[in-house]
Amino acid sequence: MKTVGYAAHSSDTPLAPYHFERRELRDNDVAMEILYCGVCHSDLHVARNDWGGSSYPVVPGHEIVGRVTAVGSNVSKYNVGDHVAVGCMVDSCQECDECHNDHEQYCRNTFTLTYGSPDRITNDMTQGGYSKHIVVREEFVLRLPENLDLAKAAPLLCAGITTYSPLREWNVGPGSRVGVVGMGGLGHMAIKLAVGLGADVTVISTSPKKEADAQELGAHNFLVSKDEDAMAAAASSFDLIIDTVPVNHDLNPYIPLLDNDATLVMVGQIGPIEGPNTAPMVFGRRRIAGSLIGGIKETQEMLDFCGRMNILPECEMIKMDEINTAFERMERSDVRYRFVIDMASLTA
Amino acid sequence: MKTVGYAAHSSDTPLAPYHFERRELRDNDVAMEILYCGVCHSDLHVARNDWGGSSYPVVPGHEIVGRVTAVGSNVSKYNVGDHVAVGCMVDSCQECDECHNDHEQYCRNTFTLTYGSPDRITNDMTQGGYSKHIVVREEFVLRLPENLDLAKAAPLLCAGITTYSPLREWNVGPGSRVGVVGMGGLGHMAIKLAVGLGADVTVISTSPKKEADAQELGAHNFLVSKDEDAMAAAASSFDLIIDTVPVNHDLNPYIPLLDNDATLVMVGQIGPIEGPNTAPMVFGRRRIAGSLIGGIKETQEMLDFCGRMNILPECEMIKMDEINTAFERMERSDVRYRFVIDMASLTA
Repeated sequence: MKTVGYAAHSSDTPLAPYHFERRELRDNDVAMEILYCGVCHSDLHVARNDWGGSSYPVVPGHEIVGRVTAVGSNVSKYNVGDHVAVGCMVDSCQECDECHNDHEQYCRNTFTLTYGSPDRITNDMTQGGYSKHIVVREEFVLRLPENLDLAKAAPLLCAGITTYSPLREWNVGPGSRVGVVGMGGLGHMAIKLAVGLGADVTVISTSPKKEADAQELGAHNFLVSKDEDAMAAAASSFDLIIDTVPVNHDLNPYIPLLDNDATLVMVGQIGPIEGPNTAPMVFGRRRIAGSLIGGIKETQEMLDFCGRMNILPECEMIKMDEINTAFERMERSDVRYRFVIDMASLTA
Repeated sequence: MKTVGYAAHSSDTPLAPYHFERRELRDNDVAMEILYCGVCHSDLHVARNDWGGSSYPVVPGHEIVGRVTAVGSNVSKYNVGDHVAVGCMVDSCQECDECHNDHEQYCRNTFTLTYGSPDRITNDMTQGGYSKHIVVREEFVLRLPENLDLAKAAPLLCAGITTYSPLREWNVGPGSRVGVVGMGGLGHMAIKLAVGLGADVTVISTSPKKEADAQELGAHNFLVSKDEDAMAAAASSFDLIIDTVPVNHDLNPYIPLLDNDATLVMVGQIGPIEGPNTAPMVFGRRRIAGSLIGGIKETQEMLDFCGRMNILPECEMIKMDEINTAFERMERSDVRYRFVIDMASLTA
């Protein structure tokens, strides 16, 4: 199937229109017209080869909302016209213990990224959601709850599940005391989802200026990390801290905020991090962990939860040809809180 | 009660004999004659004020084995002549959630160290086990299983419980894959206890020279951390790694050895640690934690377990007046694996 998208053709050129082929439907494939695609910081990293290993041209985009246009002969869950979604994964081995446990994101044989991974059958590089169409195997297609606003749902597929999964893994529920560090695309979803789960939510921020925004997003409390007295008073007061800061930073201000046996989970920074002082970890059995997106079953659970609770990201809609400006603004954190591309703006 | 011990009188003088008073028995106190006392690296740190805050004179020692010589009027669990033990704690608030949950080591109001803490009633500084006698409230006295060799049991009270507690917290049992980093006082107990619990135990060491010793202690496997091929082959192969190294070091070689969702728990280094790269944490939900000794109930459980399994530390017996030489040797890691002071060698 012929389609069109926006691709990075090298690490130092702007994204530009790109005509390419989507694969012919396999028996278990779902083809969809993409309606909206969220803009994740990872898209920028891969376009610019910040992590190395980018293969060009690459069409970014892994927060995909669409409408089914065709299904393979063995597809049973979806019908033409259904509203569906695709996140960061489009395949995995389906055979290992992690896949069997619905943790495809930790697949022993490496899951297939929505863009920039070799397809498990053809070895062609996958291409993402900054495009008119996509073809994905049924097992990696999500169903969108009917009441969710299609124009806003896309960021749930990465920013949403990335913060929902640790909230669930660490058993956040009514009364849980949750701290959120960083209030960007991920952080703002962490607030909304934790509030939705019944937690008492505190935004921990270097800047007192963000308090009004935090309240607007539903946070119950605001803690300025540069206020030493407030930080000391908040010692041992969190059951879970979700750290969404996507760059190297110092964890030492946050670890003592954890209650004994509590965990700080990093979902933003992938790379080196400042060395923590182990004293508060040893003296309170405190923990630091990482977490990556979520499995397909959990992603569907998250979408259904957001449908029931009407939880949606804050989005700024852009046209496809505004993507390079959006990248620049995202680099300056000048977005509240997620860009979403209206794919109707992309014409062949 | 008059007694005698060896005290540090300043940070830069050798330990020397010290005559002092133990408190008169309170109703819930147990008085004991100390028979043996283990020599922990902490003793050296406090004697030399390495952590700051040492108050002189200080009598170190928190791996104490003794015989009951008198009991207070309300003591019900112990009788004169019983063989008993005291570890790193001699009191706690007994009122907070952690104390109520048998985690006195994480007492919200700070537990009382066996030496160098203010007594909760008199405010006098506590003095430790490098002495002929000690008086401890009943709740912090442990019972020694009858079959345990008294002359070797002392190191269980710190090195033993410090490694047993994380093995239990992280559910180590038959078939668990446990790595042990560092093979000193703590590490050698981690090996023995993990083997006793039925785990498959691997010593992870920079030095291939230690393999025979590791096998002798019961380890099933030996992994040389400088052997890149062996380390790569061991990726994702541990359910728990106990890191007993007591100085700042790099965790990055060890984190990828953890299986997904597994934990590296630090029980040695209290202070700054090299910054880990978060990538293997994020991509496998791997975790880093600290852990501190264990609660009184768990310490008794550990002693009973060691009694049933006949698990004992490897000890080198010294006389009280050899303590300064022992400190010097301990600094060079020249001990296999724990010095124990025969308190009969100390005469008034």
